[in-house]
Amino acid sequence: MRRPLAAGLRTFATTPARRAEPPPPRRPDFKKLDAADVAHLRSLLGSPDSSLVTTIPAPNGEWTACAQEDLVSYNSDWMDKYHGHSPVLVKPKSTQEVSKVLQYCYQKRIAVVPQGGNTGLVGGGVPLYDELILSTEGLNQIRDFDDVSGILTADAGAILESLSNFLHPKGYMMPLDLGAKGSCHIGGNISTNAGGLRLLRYGSLHGTVLGIEAVLPDEKGTVLSINMPGGCGAGALRKDNTGYDLKQLFIGAEGTLGVVTGVSILTPRLPSAYNVAVLSVPDFKSVQTVFKETRTHLGEILSAFEFFDHEGLEMVLEHTGAQSPFESQPEEGAEKPFYVLIETSGSNKDHDDEKLGGLLESLLENGTISDGTLAQDETQVQSLWSLRESLPEAAGKLGRVYKYDLSMPVKDMYSLVEEARERFAEKGLDKDGSIKTTVGYGHIGDGNLHINIVAKDWDPKVEKTIEPWIYEATAKRNGSISAEHGLGLMKAPYVGYSKTEPAIAVMQQIRRLFDPRGILSPAKYLPQASELPFQSEEERVQ
Amino acid sequence: MRRPLAAGLRTFATTPARRAEPPPPRRPDFKKLDAADVAHLRSLLGSPDSSLVTTIPAPNGEWTACAQEDLVSYNSDWMDKYHGHSPVLVKPKSTQEVSKVLQYCYQKRIAVVPQGGNTGLVGGGVPLYDELILSTEGLNQIRDFDDVSGILTADAGAILESLSNFLHPKGYMMPLDLGAKGSCHIGGNISTNAGGLRLLRYGSLHGTVLGIEAVLPDEKGTVLSINMPGGCGAGALRKDNTGYDLKQLFIGAEGTLGVVTGVSILTPRLPSAYNVAVLSVPDFKSVQTVFKETRTHLGEILSAFEFFDHEGLEMVLEHTGAQSPFESQPEEGAEKPFYVLIETSGSNKDHDDEKLGGLLESLLENGTISDGTLAQDETQVQSLWSLRESLPEAAGKLGRVYKYDLSMPVKDMYSLVEEARERFAEKGLDKDGSIKTTVGYGHIGDGNLHINIVAKDWDPKVEKTIEPWIYEATAKRNGSISAEHGLGLMKAPYVGYSKTEPAIAVMQQIRRLFDPRGILSPAKYLPQASELPFQSEEERVQ
Ligand SMILES: Cc1cc2nc3c(=O)[nH]c(=O)nc-3n(C[C@H](O)[C@H](O)[C@H](O)COP(=O)(O)OP(=O)(O)OC[C@H]3O[C@@H](n4cnc5c(N)ncnc54)[C@H](O)[C@@H]3O)c2cc1C
Ligand SMILES: Cc1cc2nc3c(=O)[nH]c(=O)nc-3n(C[C@H](O)[C@H](O)[C@H](O)COP(=O)(O)OP(=O)(O)OC[C@H]3O[C@@H](n4cnc5c(N)ncnc54)[C@H](O)[C@@H]3O)c2cc1C
Repeated sequence: MRRPLAAGLRTFATTPARRAEPPPPRRPDFKKLDAADVAHLRSLLGSPDSSLVTTIPAPNGEWTACAQEDLVSYNSDWMDKYHGHSPVLVKPKSTQEVSKVLQYCYQKRIAVVPQGGNTGLVGGGVPLYDELILSTEGLNQIRDFDDVSGILTADAGAILESLSNFLHPKGYMMPLDLGAKGSCHIGGNISTNAGGLRLLRYGSLHGTVLGIEAVLPDEKGTVLSINMPGGCGAGALRKDNTGYDLKQLFIGAEGTLGVVTGVSILTPRLPSAYNVAVLSVPDFKSVQTVFKETRTHLGEILSAFEFFDHEGLEMVLEHTGAQSPFESQPEEGAEKPFYVLIETSGSNKDHDDEKLGGLLESLLENGTISDGTLAQDETQVQSLWSLRESLPEAAGKLGRVYKYDLSMPVKDMYSLVEEARERFAEKGLDKDGSIKTTVGYGHIGDGNLHINIVAKDWDPKVEKTIEPWIYEATAKRNGSISAEHGLGLMKAPYVGYSKTEPAIAVMQQIRRLFDPRGILSPAKYLPQASELPFQSEEERVQ
Repeated sequence: MRRPLAAGLRTFATTPARRAEPPPPRRPDFKKLDAADVAHLRSLLGSPDSSLVTTIPAPNGEWTACAQEDLVSYNSDWMDKYHGHSPVLVKPKSTQEVSKVLQYCYQKRIAVVPQGGNTGLVGGGVPLYDELILSTEGLNQIRDFDDVSGILTADAGAILESLSNFLHPKGYMMPLDLGAKGSCHIGGNISTNAGGLRLLRYGSLHGTVLGIEAVLPDEKGTVLSINMPGGCGAGALRKDNTGYDLKQLFIGAEGTLGVVTGVSILTPRLPSAYNVAVLSVPDFKSVQTVFKETRTHLGEILSAFEFFDHEGLEMVLEHTGAQSPFESQPEEGAEKPFYVLIETSGSNKDHDDEKLGGLLESLLENGTISDGTLAQDETQVQSLWSLRESLPEAAGKLGRVYKYDLSMPVKDMYSLVEEARERFAEKGLDKDGSIKTTVGYGHIGDGNLHINIVAKDWDPKVEKTIEPWIYEATAKRNGSISAEHGLGLMKAPYVGYSKTEPAIAVMQQIRRLFDPRGILSPAKYLPQASELPFQSEEERVQ
């Protein structure tokens, strides 16, 4: 039965459903994986011994069961915040194997969670209960590279950093870069629509991804190949206006529509010249002034504009043991300064130096910046960048980190961090040591604020002080409750803060269209039917 | 009833269904517009006398019927190739009016064709039969502009050029530019995913469009507001990963999912320096060599790289009466040269001049180019650009133009033009004057080839010689049968040359999800159910 889309003009759910703790129960109609399933899944795989790992013992000695611990790193997320207990990990080696596995899971109603490098920060890539873990680890080949157009085609499981390493000697680079590059998979990047440090210059994956190959969780394990090279018909083209751009739905779908197995992406030329400067400014307003001036002076060579606060710098210096790059230190009781990192990349070092020099001169002259460092060589470039890039790691070392990645108009960004600190102080959470520090940093160019609230431990009291307050504060500022990291398990019930009811209704229908039995990443990404007023039980995927 | 998506690994329809001539008949279940409909539609509009134009007389003198001729320009397309006979044109003045009109059309099963500036080239924006024409002409306000972020929000009916004119004094520009800028609407640009002359530099609308407001053809005339500013919740943000990026579906949907009423778009800074050069090269291979060298020398300041052939230049010079910008003319019998237009735009004129100078020096030194002109002032910039931009107009003046806009790997682009000419010669179509000339031009940077086949008249004999041969030849080269212009009426039956069967099946299901009664742009965009093997009659929207 098809129902009309929910109506209403920009009706936001004013009181979005809140996730009850604990999360929704395991759906009883999902099959519990057993030895017969393992035997059948093994029969679908070319090298079952390396492609399937399970804690389920073989009745007939056909395979060796592993210990629970062997699956821990796949069952737990990077922050050690979400923990599932799946007994089966499958690592297919080809698109056809993924297709066979998904077809089987569809037939048997086995719930599945797709997993890439498992660096996601919202609990999307690990099982909630006992879902089969379908990892792309085994899909890691580079399929094709065209060095005239810069179009790269690779398996979804290729690690971001290895793709970068492949491209550099050819004079190209990946259009995205993030702290997790050594572990995350390009398929995971696409599935989370990862942003990262180069978005300001090269735009989002919605612009740079040209083709996607994905397997659907349906009767046939349908392989959807959209603008991928090879065969006959459109392949790896920059322009193609033949029908809806279906691949866009997979960008940021977090594994709810299908398993991405391959990708074709446009890679930019590697710039021949880089510059990095880190500047100290007295307040957040000056961060914005510097941003405006920077865009005017640097124009097309600006490739990153990041900011971090003094609390962040202190945390990093303590963690790394490094020296502050600034001569002057804020005096006791004085307002704490902010820091901006500016990167240029271009094709002519002299021109870029001249442009950056012009900017710095003008900023010093008009007194906007008080202190700064300009990298003189590659080592210094790295060490300045590491001030910004070490922030998540430093927070992780200091305690349990409640991480929020929000976007909003630049002018409203930092008041949210200040409000958070006041709130914690009011509740005495800083005094009693529950919260160690609250730091703010992010990509100014994209209006993207990362707030890291470092707590002594995962603590319901702390969590209740933060959520849903932080989402409300974001929505009030016309912001998004997830700029980059996605929804996963963490934010599924809160989508209503950023999306209207009709939009959520359409999303749920699209999800059902691709995943008719709802076996992919259940309970994640979107609110449950029961949490929404506009979907009847009858309609719910059983 | 939901059916699983059609299966198969990259199965292209090997013999795509061909549109029988004439196109599919009018669906008998669509209501014929009558005076009662006009009266009701008028009651939904704030200023019915200016917002509704109809040839249907008022029984009671409530309105004045117009003459058939008054609707001709809305019933016929820019090329004068497609002609409908709609009796009703509605031009709503607000999103709410659009909503009411679509709700009524849904209830009454009235077929609707959304229309912007009516500059589309595939017959998508004009009625096929008697569909109600819903024009965005009345929706032409700029809603908001943020001069820190460069985010512009406007009604869908705003004309591209007026948006440019609005932005220039503020130091910003539209990220797209096309020959039709004086007439086309931003909503039409989005609905066709228009490419144009700046795509190489600023990327496609899939990257630059941030928000879309659209009205759905359903029971309630649902208004879908996705990342638009105003109200509470996410608005006009560069980054937002809360759910499927639904707005992407509307980019290039050609009016089949809903009527776009508003848009929020990221506009780049206006460069302060421009350079344009037109170069003559001996053959198409050299065009590619020059492209490679250009990217190396110009890097981030390259903003356009266009090519056109000698036939194209001759046609334009004849049409405009202008002088050739080149000193040397090809000798009788010699191979005909090709021309490339290179544009740079940047933030520092001296730097740009130096980079371009370096490129030209190197190209002259190694003998790749034989002749060239560099614009010395704004007037020369315009006149060099007009060599390229006048091509479509010149073709239109010369005869009836069969236009194909294809994309494919750059190396295979021009052989297709040559094959076409040989084919026409074989069939004697050049000798007998049916075909006056065949010209090739396009955006090298995007692998986008425009072939204009100028015929004496619209002629089934000519058309049969071209189609489907040209689509087959494109598919063989791994190309797309529509790089920019879309599918419309012209290419609806041919999608199978560029998309796989499973992908087309998914598209049809998505279309039905948004437009349950199939009232929007019937018979266009996708193949009819009867032309596809994988959709049962029962499932077809009645
Ligand atoms: C230190 C650190 C820094 C980070 N910095 C950034 C940053 O700057 N910007 C940013 O956006 N993110 C950042 N992240 C978050 C994370 O790295 C990204 O979200 C990354 O793109 C996830 O990739 P992954 O391969 O690890 O995916 P996983 O964590 O394995 O999975 C993420 C989600 O995608 C789904 N998924 C994974 N692979 C597939 C597939 N092939 N098909 C279908 N679904 C799939 C999973 O089910 C899950 O929902 C950071 C993380 C860390 C740990
Ligand atoms: C001289 C000339 C040069 C051109 N150059 C280029 C070029 O370089 N690149 C390029 O890509 N195209 C080009 N075109 C094609 C055309 O201009 C573009 O496709 C343009 O984007 C269409 O905009 P429009 O407002 O005229 O739309 P229309 O022609 O009115 O409509 C086009 C399609 O979009 C739908 N539509 C229009 N508005 C809406 C809306 N608000 N909501 C839903 N659906 C809607 C219509 O139903 C139709 O299917 C050119 C055309 C001409 C005449």
